[in-house]
Amino acid sequence: MLQDKTPAQTPLSRLGEFGLIHHLTEKFPLRRKETRTGIGDDAAVLDMREGMSLWSTDMLVEGVHFDPAYTPYKHLGYKAVIVNLSDIYAMNAEPTHITVSIAASSRYSVEILEEIYAGIRLACELYEVDLVGGDTTTTPRGLQISIGVMGKAKAEDIVYRSGAHVNDLLVVTGDLAAAYLGLQVLEREKRVVEVNPGAEPDLTPYAYLVERQLKPEARRDIIRLFKELKLKPTSMIDISDGLSSEILHLCKASGMGCYLYEEKIPLDPQVINTLEEFDLEHTTIALSSGEDYELLFTISQKDYDKIKGNPNFTVIGHMADAGEGAHLITRAGQKVELIARGWNSFE
Amino acid sequence: MLQDKTPAQTPLSRLGEFGLIHHLTEKFPLRRKETRTGIGDDAAVLDMREGMSLWSTDMLVEGVHFDPAYTPYKHLGYKAVIVNLSDIYAMNAEPTHITVSIAASSRYSVEILEEIYAGIRLACELYEVDLVGGDTTTTPRGLQISIGVMGKAKAEDIVYRSGAHVNDLLVVTGDLAAAYLGLQVLEREKRVVEVNPGAEPDLTPYAYLVERQLKPEARRDIIRLFKELKLKPTSMIDISDGLSSEILHLCKASGMGCYLYEEKIPLDPQVINTLEEFDLEHTTIALSSGEDYELLFTISQKDYDKIKGNPNFTVIGHMADAGEGAHLITRAGQKVELIARGWNSFE
Repeated sequence: MLQDKTPAQTPLSRLGEFGLIHHLTEKFPLRRKETRTGIGDDAAVLDMREGMSLWSTDMLVEGVHFDPAYTPYKHLGYKAVIVNLSDIYAMNAEPTHITVSIAASSRYSVEILEEIYAGIRLACELYEVDLVGGDTTTTPRGLQISIGVMGKAKAEDIVYRSGAHVNDLLVVTGDLAAAYLGLQVLEREKRVVEVNPGAEPDLTPYAYLVERQLKPEARRDIIRLFKELKLKPTSMIDISDGLSSEILHLCKASGMGCYLYEEKIPLDPQVINTLEEFDLEHTTIALSSGEDYELLFTISQKDYDKIKGNPNFTVIGHMADAGEGAHLITRAGQKVELIARGWNSFE
Repeated sequence: MLQDKTPAQTPLSRLGEFGLIHHLTEKFPLRRKETRTGIGDDAAVLDMREGMSLWSTDMLVEGVHFDPAYTPYKHLGYKAVIVNLSDIYAMNAEPTHITVSIAASSRYSVEILEEIYAGIRLACELYEVDLVGGDTTTTPRGLQISIGVMGKAKAEDIVYRSGAHVNDLLVVTGDLAAAYLGLQVLEREKRVVEVNPGAEPDLTPYAYLVERQLKPEARRDIIRLFKELKLKPTSMIDISDGLSSEILHLCKASGMGCYLYEEKIPLDPQVINTLEEFDLEHTTIALSSGEDYELLFTISQKDYDKIKGNPNFTVIGHMADAGEGAHLITRAGQKVELIARGWNSFE
C-alpha cells in the first residue's frame, strides 16, 4: 500500500520551470471546440459564446487534504480534477476546461509529477475537458495543487443553491460516508505499517471504501440523466464537506427550513459493516463525513414520478418554511436540530 | 520596514472555513455586467458571450515569491492580483474577473488575511475586475496564494506570442530591472536589521525601486493607448521572468530570430545608480531581472510613426529570420548569442 519514495529520481531543477510545464503538458490533446489556444501563451483563449460560463476553483494541500503515505500520485491528480468537476456538475452544467497550478518541494521528482499529471490526463479524457493553463513552481515544503475549472450551460438550465421551495423533496444520489470510512481504513493501515513495516494489509473487505476515498468520480451521469428525464432540480449542491453542512447551505441560500429523515440516508452495506467495526455512530458519520462528491438537490413534488424507483436517487427529506428550522428526524422519531458538522480544514 | 507580527490576533480557526471566506469577501462589490453570480454557490456564473474569453493563473508561494519580513500583506494581495492581470493585458485583452485561493498556516491570523484581501480589493477597484470565487484552507507551513484571472477581447484584437515577422520592431514599455533592484535593497536592509534590530533603514533613495518590487502595476494604460493609436502589435508578452527569457519566448513562438541592442534597453537613473552601488553588471541584470510587468511587443515597421516619440515606448531591437538566431548587440558592437537568463524558481 505504501509507496516507495526512495529510488533515484530526476530532480525538478533538471528541467527548469518552462521545460517542466512543457514536459508535463505536451501529451495533453485539445479536444474541445471551445478551445482556441491552450497552454503556451500568456493566457488561454476560449470561445464561450454559446451560453453562460461557470467558473470554480479548489486547492489541495499535502498534510491537510491528502497524505502521500497512502495516496498514489496518479490518484491524487485524478481526484484533484474530480473535486473541481463536481462543482460544475452541481450547477447542472458541463465542465469544459481546467487549469492546474502545482507547487512542489525539492523532495518531489519529475517522475512523481508525471504520475500526478497522468491522473489529471485520465480525468481530462474520461470527462472530456481540456487542460488549458497552469503554473509550476517550487515551495519550501510539501505539495499544493490548485485547480481551476470552467464550464458552460444555457442560462435557463443552471441550478443554484437558492431555488428550493417549501415542500420540495430533498434528494441525494448514490450513497454516503464511504470516502470518509475509506480514509479511516487507510489511516489505520498506515499506523499498522508504521509499527510493523513488513505488514501487508488486506484491503479487500474495504475495496469500495478505499476506492471512494482515493479515486472518487464526479456525477456527470446524473446531469445527463436529468436531461433525459427532463428534470430540473430547484436547487443543488455537491457533497464535499458533509451532508448536514450541505443541506444547511441549500436551506440558507433558499431561505428555507427542512426535515431530514435519518432512516432514509443511503449507506452501502460495506459502510454499515465498517461503521460497526470501528464502533462509529452511524448518523453522526453520515451527516458529517465529506468527500462523497454525490449530488444533493431538491425537486418539486410534481416531479417525483420522474425519479421514483430510480436506484440513483434517494429521497431523504423535504424543505420547510424557514420558521420551522432545519431538523433531523431520528429513527426513534425524535426531532433534533440539524447543525453543520462537516469537515473544516481549520479545525 | 519590518512588520510586527507579535500582537495577539484572531486565529483562523475562530471563523471556520465558510465564515472566513464570507468575512473576507463580503465587502467586495460586484461591478461588472458580465457577472451573474459571484461567490456563494458551487461556481461563479459569468456571461462571456461578447467575444473570446481569456484565462490564466499564477501562484505565489511564501519563501519563493515573497518574504513576509519586508512584504506588507496589503501589498502582497495587491501584487498577487497585478501579476495575473498583467497576463491578460499581454494578450491585448481586458481582465474582467478573478478567483483567489489562499492556503495559510496557523501562524496567520484573520487580521493578516484581512490585510491581504484589502490589497486584493484595491486592485479589483482600480482595475475594475470582480472577485467571483475562491477557496480558503489551512496548510502545514507558510502561505500560498493561487489566483485565476478571466478576461475578454474581440477575437481579432487578441495578440499572441506567435505573430512576429522579420524586421518587426521589438518594443518595450517603461523601464526595466527596478523591481529586481528593489528586492536587492530590501534583502540588504533585512540583513542589516537582523544584525542590528534597532536599525531604521532609510529607503528614500530607493523609493522607485522598492515600489516597483512591492507594489507593481499592470499596464492597462498601454492596452488603452494601443486602441487610441489604432495600433495592434504583431506579438506580445509581459516581462515577468526577465527580458532575455521573454524575447526568446516571442522568437520561439513566432519562429523568428532577433537583434537586441544593449544601448537601447531603458533603465531608470535610480536603477543605474543602484547597479553601481551594488557593483552589478548593467546588461546582465537588465536581461535577467524579472517582475517588471512591463509589456514587450513587436510591431510592423509601417506602424513606427504611431509610437515615435512616445515616452511610454522604447524600440530595443528588431526581429530577424530564424536562421540568424537571437542576438544581443553590445555597446561595443559585439554580437553575443541571447540566452534565457530569467528567473526560475527551481534554480
